[in-house]
Amino acid sequence: MARIVMKFGGTSVADVEKIKNVARRVKSEVDAGNQVAVVVSAMSGKTNELVGWADEISPMYDAREYDVIVSSGEQVTVGLIAMALQSMDVPARSWLGWQIPIKTDGAHAKARIKEIDTTELDKRMNSGEVVCVAGFQGIAPDNRITTLGRGGSDTSAVALAAALKADRCDIYTDVDGVYTTDPRIVPKARKIEKITYEEMLELASLGAKVLQTRSVEMAMNHRVRVQVRSSFSDAEGTLVVDEDEIVEQEVVSGIAYSRDEAKITLVKVADKPGIAASIFGPLAEANINVDMIVQNVSEDGKSTDMTFTVPRGEFKRALSVIEGNSAKIGYKELLSTSDVTKVSIIGVGMRSHVGVARKMFETLAEKGINIQVISTSEIKVSVLIAEEYTELAVRALHTAYGLDAE
Amino acid sequence: MARIVMKFGGTSVADVEKIKNVARRVKSEVDAGNQVAVVVSAMSGKTNELVGWADEISPMYDAREYDVIVSSGEQVTVGLIAMALQSMDVPARSWLGWQIPIKTDGAHAKARIKEIDTTELDKRMNSGEVVCVAGFQGIAPDNRITTLGRGGSDTSAVALAAALKADRCDIYTDVDGVYTTDPRIVPKARKIEKITYEEMLELASLGAKVLQTRSVEMAMNHRVRVQVRSSFSDAEGTLVVDEDEIVEQEVVSGIAYSRDEAKITLVKVADKPGIAASIFGPLAEANINVDMIVQNVSEDGKSTDMTFTVPRGEFKRALSVIEGNSAKIGYKELLSTSDVTKVSIIGVGMRSHVGVARKMFETLAEKGINIQVISTSEIKVSVLIAEEYTELAVRALHTAYGLDAE
Repeated sequence: MARIVMKFGGTSVADVEKIKNVARRVKSEVDAGNQVAVVVSAMSGKTNELVGWADEISPMYDAREYDVIVSSGEQVTVGLIAMALQSMDVPARSWLGWQIPIKTDGAHAKARIKEIDTTELDKRMNSGEVVCVAGFQGIAPDNRITTLGRGGSDTSAVALAAALKADRCDIYTDVDGVYTTDPRIVPKARKIEKITYEEMLELASLGAKVLQTRSVEMAMNHRVRVQVRSSFSDAEGTLVVDEDEIVEQEVVSGIAYSRDEAKITLVKVADKPGIAASIFGPLAEANINVDMIVQNVSEDGKSTDMTFTVPRGEFKRALSVIEGNSAKIGYKELLSTSDVTKVSIIGVGMRSHVGVARKMFETLAEKGINIQVISTSEIKVSVLIAEEYTELAVRALHTAYGLDAE
Repeated sequence: MARIVMKFGGTSVADVEKIKNVARRVKSEVDAGNQVAVVVSAMSGKTNELVGWADEISPMYDAREYDVIVSSGEQVTVGLIAMALQSMDVPARSWLGWQIPIKTDGAHAKARIKEIDTTELDKRMNSGEVVCVAGFQGIAPDNRITTLGRGGSDTSAVALAAALKADRCDIYTDVDGVYTTDPRIVPKARKIEKITYEEMLELASLGAKVLQTRSVEMAMNHRVRVQVRSSFSDAEGTLVVDEDEIVEQEVVSGIAYSRDEAKITLVKVADKPGIAASIFGPLAEANINVDMIVQNVSEDGKSTDMTFTVPRGEFKRALSVIEGNSAKIGYKELLSTSDVTKVSIIGVGMRSHVGVARKMFETLAEKGINIQVISTSEIKVSVLIAEEYTELAVRALHTAYGLDAE
């Protein structure tokens, strides 16, 4: 007997038939003798519809009211899934964030879970009842509903698995696992059987949309065994686990890419202490997320070029912040483009292998792809390239690192 | 300065534009110096959609889960209306049933309000904030969401008005008031300026769908001044008030009709003590609502005919209950039809006028309409007639009692 958390995303609960299908999957785990907590998202499209209404009312809406509105989507599905289970003679009831409670901080629309009281859930699960939990939502100290940000149901599920000391947290979605890269670009992409938390974290934050980044962080911190798998097939999914559980580790596990990039270059800024602060201070104050940063080697010892990237959605705002501070920063020219893609190779094997980055640079050079910016961490190398080369680069790297399926 | 509760039905909040329109109406009351509590229904069609999903999952659904699902509709609109008010610089926030709390009993899907804690709402209203309350919902002793039955937002509004000691409870809907009869049948129907609680109660329970019956009962018990008016015009609505506030009382205030009737006759049952109990006992146990009952005068002193009506939705079930108990009851024949309509005249003036019922019978006789069953109360007379005569009967009575508009 195991205790498991099963999380179903929006496409898995998109209509009544799919919800019944989810109930059948849950029932089969119950019939196998497992204790089950189910976490559900809103029906696919529902959250977008609700957010759309809020935007229509006022683009500058109150995040507390936003949370009241958008949390209703999960409320509907959690009731329906409990009903569906009951109709199959599986004891079940729904739980909303405030009923458990799932306590969060007061950062509405992007709240963080502080504590989950599992007293009642524990009791119910021990007695054989399936606890159906509305994902994405919690309750703030002021007794108002909070939501955890888009994709937040993944985080709900992992947090619940940690709090319930579950043996496993299964994330059911519309793909059957995590792939070595996007199969829409590389038909030879392979499903990864096991991946480390660290790699999954990089993949998630580098653009692979299969898990919310925060949920992976949380899984890593609490050592929750996460499995990503399909609601629509019985195929084994991808297991996200500790490094020591993976016997034969690839050097590079996956290739990620993100088109959500824009590049800004400040030409000939003074090469002196404090110059970086004068540029990135105002951007941070404006809540703009700067990603890659590269400062050219100064040729004359007096001036240098500073290049950095920001998400495309914050591109225009970033430019106007820089222009508004142009006198204080002092630059000769401001260059910018959004025709760029960030391509990354990820793998914990990099730590113990040399020449991994070099192979990346050589592979791209062979294809005539110019690298504009490079950034690295312990387990990933990211390069910024012209957007038009995206597919070419990803395919070439996928082959170069031996990831192609036979 | 007055303290008012403004309730908006589903058609009044059907989309974002209409919600903004509602916010403008609320703002004009605030600008006039009034303290305002707003109660909203779900967007029109939304509750039906949610109920439909529940029915699809399982016709025998758990009412507690039903409440979780259907209460989400009001949650959406209450957040949107609070946002819309804020965007017009009116301080406002949303309140869900469990946040106030609006405490109900545990009868899920048809709960009754026990107590509304107004401490916080009072404080907010005194400080000039508009409190936006989700209609139709409350919280049960077991900390689960309850709903008040279809049309329950009217009851929420009246209960809130009573608890807040509001000067007025305005029910905004898609008609501009209560009419002497259904204007779709009688073009000469007139809007009633003032109507007594008692008459409104009869009208509501006899088929006029403008207010939920329970909300009128509650208004009567707590002497809440209710006004029914249109969201889409500035015309004065209908005031529901105490009898002594109405100077010139019509003898008959309105004509109601209901096609939701079915008639059952048991031919030649024994005319002996206990026979009624043997028929209506099993029906009551099956939760079937018997309305009109008539027992013929016994001709031979031994047997009689028993006729009664039930709602059409319970017709088949009622027949099978009777048939299942046929041996115990003992009857010669079972006659039944659903081709019947109940037509009623309502007016507190009946108490002090004679001949009111006689005029009804004469008017119908003149038109050649046969009366099948009669039932009366202090302020109404109802007759059951063949359904095909419905329009003819209502029009003739409307004219006979001087209700036609000039």
